[in-house]
Amino acid sequence: MSKIKIGLFGFGVVGSGIYEVLRKSKNADAEIVKICVADLSKPRTLEASYFTDDPQDILSNPEINLVVEVINDADAAYTIVKSALERGKNVVSGSKTMLAQHLDELIELQNKYGAALLYDASSCGSIPVIRNLEEYYDNDLLLEVKGILNGSSNYILSRVFDHKSSYADALRQAQELGFAEKDPSFDIDGFDSLFKLVIITVHALGAYVRPERIFTYGISTIHESDISYAREKSVKIKLVAQVVKISDESFTMFVMPEFVSPSRYIYSVDDEYNGVVIRGECYDRQFMFGKGAGSLPTASSILSDIMALQHDYRYGYKKLHFHDKPEYTTDVKLKIYVRYNETDIPSVLDFLSVEEQYTGRESKYVIGEILLSELIAKRESIRGKDVFIANIPMFFINRD
Amino acid sequence: MSKIKIGLFGFGVVGSGIYEVLRKSKNADAEIVKICVADLSKPRTLEASYFTDDPQDILSNPEINLVVEVINDADAAYTIVKSALERGKNVVSGSKTMLAQHLDELIELQNKYGAALLYDASSCGSIPVIRNLEEYYDNDLLLEVKGILNGSSNYILSRVFDHKSSYADALRQAQELGFAEKDPSFDIDGFDSLFKLVIITVHALGAYVRPERIFTYGISTIHESDISYAREKSVKIKLVAQVVKISDESFTMFVMPEFVSPSRYIYSVDDEYNGVVIRGECYDRQFMFGKGAGSLPTASSILSDIMALQHDYRYGYKKLHFHDKPEYTTDVKLKIYVRYNETDIPSVLDFLSVEEQYTGRESKYVIGEILLSELIAKRESIRGKDVFIANIPMFFINRD
Repeated sequence: MSKIKIGLFGFGVVGSGIYEVLRKSKNADAEIVKICVADLSKPRTLEASYFTDDPQDILSNPEINLVVEVINDADAAYTIVKSALERGKNVVSGSKTMLAQHLDELIELQNKYGAALLYDASSCGSIPVIRNLEEYYDNDLLLEVKGILNGSSNYILSRVFDHKSSYADALRQAQELGFAEKDPSFDIDGFDSLFKLVIITVHALGAYVRPERIFTYGISTIHESDISYAREKSVKIKLVAQVVKISDESFTMFVMPEFVSPSRYIYSVDDEYNGVVIRGECYDRQFMFGKGAGSLPTASSILSDIMALQHDYRYGYKKLHFHDKPEYTTDVKLKIYVRYNETDIPSVLDFLSVEEQYTGRESKYVIGEILLSELIAKRESIRGKDVFIANIPMFFINRD
Repeated sequence: MSKIKIGLFGFGVVGSGIYEVLRKSKNADAEIVKICVADLSKPRTLEASYFTDDPQDILSNPEINLVVEVINDADAAYTIVKSALERGKNVVSGSKTMLAQHLDELIELQNKYGAALLYDASSCGSIPVIRNLEEYYDNDLLLEVKGILNGSSNYILSRVFDHKSSYADALRQAQELGFAEKDPSFDIDGFDSLFKLVIITVHALGAYVRPERIFTYGISTIHESDISYAREKSVKIKLVAQVVKISDESFTMFVMPEFVSPSRYIYSVDDEYNGVVIRGECYDRQFMFGKGAGSLPTASSILSDIMALQHDYRYGYKKLHFHDKPEYTTDVKLKIYVRYNETDIPSVLDFLSVEEQYTGRESKYVIGEILLSELIAKRESIRGKDVFIANIPMFFINRD
């Protein structure tokens, strides 16, 4: 590929970071030609001639051979990426929501039109998870990918555990520091982690599972009593996303709070950091740790994708073509802690067995074994209620 | 590349691990055709028809399209790898000593004959350091690679610090567990780390620096008093290898014990594990952690290289061709701790400034600033003496 001429969609935190990173990297033979933004009237740090609000100024510009898309609107991102690929333009995307919802189609489009789509920045910012799963752990020895994929919720939980803030204070602080959005639900309800997990699973096990099929539970209902319980047991509560191969035939995946004991690598992933454990049959556990978000860390990951395209790199999606691939199952026994208040959890959730049940004036909880499929079946009955769920790792997932 | 037919040199710990890993990976389209060993009379777990002691049975066999070399003899490894490349055969090598000494020539041979040489297993076993430096951190934002690259010495230091063993007991234990060789000097004197650092630097900064130009100091002279001193300061002593960009024009590198404070990522790299911190201008610090050695972890890394060759991957050595590359310098100020006994260190080493000097009945030490070039100039005067040196990270290297 000759000199890269970039059409950039989005000039917010990440978009302006890309401009900055390209400026710093003297050896990157790439320049931004045009930037498409939603609101042309906003004051910008670059001269006005760079900007447009018409996507066609990029998509129909034959000089532009790479589209970089870092906008928040998933539907608009989908339209842009699809249309760029259809015109044979390579694309770098950071939109996890869009990718998690359309990855199957976007893989087909790449095959059909020959253009490449890279998106390492979409999952864990500057940690090269996807590239390593695709290229280095490109065999069938992989057993598990488990990690803290969302910096906002992790920051909040760290404040709560390490600095004994209240949840409300921690959330406010995260918002003030820019680690959490004004509407934090995308992060704290687990959807950010979920979408990253969907993308990771395509490259980990060669399976695309639609987000709505995956159990996802966040941290917004955490109480003082949950925190006290965890402290008593000398564990931290972390929001953990995981995909685990159970046998040669099946794997499972979910996002939920987890009691993490100090011996686990992810125990020490604090504040806004991300950490991912990759476990395989022969290499045991590899731990990758770094900044999962932020302007420059994400932009540096985008730069890696840009330079990879310059060297004609594309994801091979090799594992999609493996024979004997494992299939997604929710027929998996988990051990969970459920703290509740008004909703009578023991009558709502059908536990296989109950190990502990506690009813106090301040809190009630039950600990027991349950099928993941049961959690999925009942998720609408507990959503929005004052109910907190945490996974207690058992045998098959007890090895992060 | 069609089905991979492997000629394997070496069937020790790693060689037999490769056989095992290939057997486990159902999707690896590769098989071992012939195995060359030094001693045909040793009892083997595979049938005799696999084995030969004549390298030509592999090198001259047109059916074999990949040579995998995991032998301990660096000179023999060099002859094998060179001769395989000259015949256009791709090679996977795990011989860090050989690679560190001949990498410049081996890069030329790859260019000349078109065959590819991969060696990710040579540095940090299953941690994909080289591949990530080459492909993901393939830009000029990289500032530093710093890590614990040798499992044996780290195991010994962990026993000493965390389990309060004596150095002698810890070494014996490491040998019993197979973490250290009978002659442990290669590991504990820092040469294993040095050779890995030389290889890493080629892919980190595009510079090949001959091992003998690099200051290397090991842990074999560590005393109770050094350990007590470190404990008092709440730091651990780790054997650290590092390459650090000092400016756009220059970088430095060395291997020596270091006082590591608890806030550093590598502080928590204990026992036989390896940990590497990659620091860049925009992505800050990435930390990679895993098993750096052992039969199956190393073999799984070799499998990654084998599968990469199946997809026509080769190292691009892109950074070797960057313009404005930084050059190696030893004109760098370090702050070090030197504990000595008979050798009168203050009269041997020319310190720029001395911060502390202590003379007790049991031990003497000096802490001060010194040029790295001075340490290199005087290394023969202190080698083999009862002198222990540790780096105390200052400003420019104070950010791992």
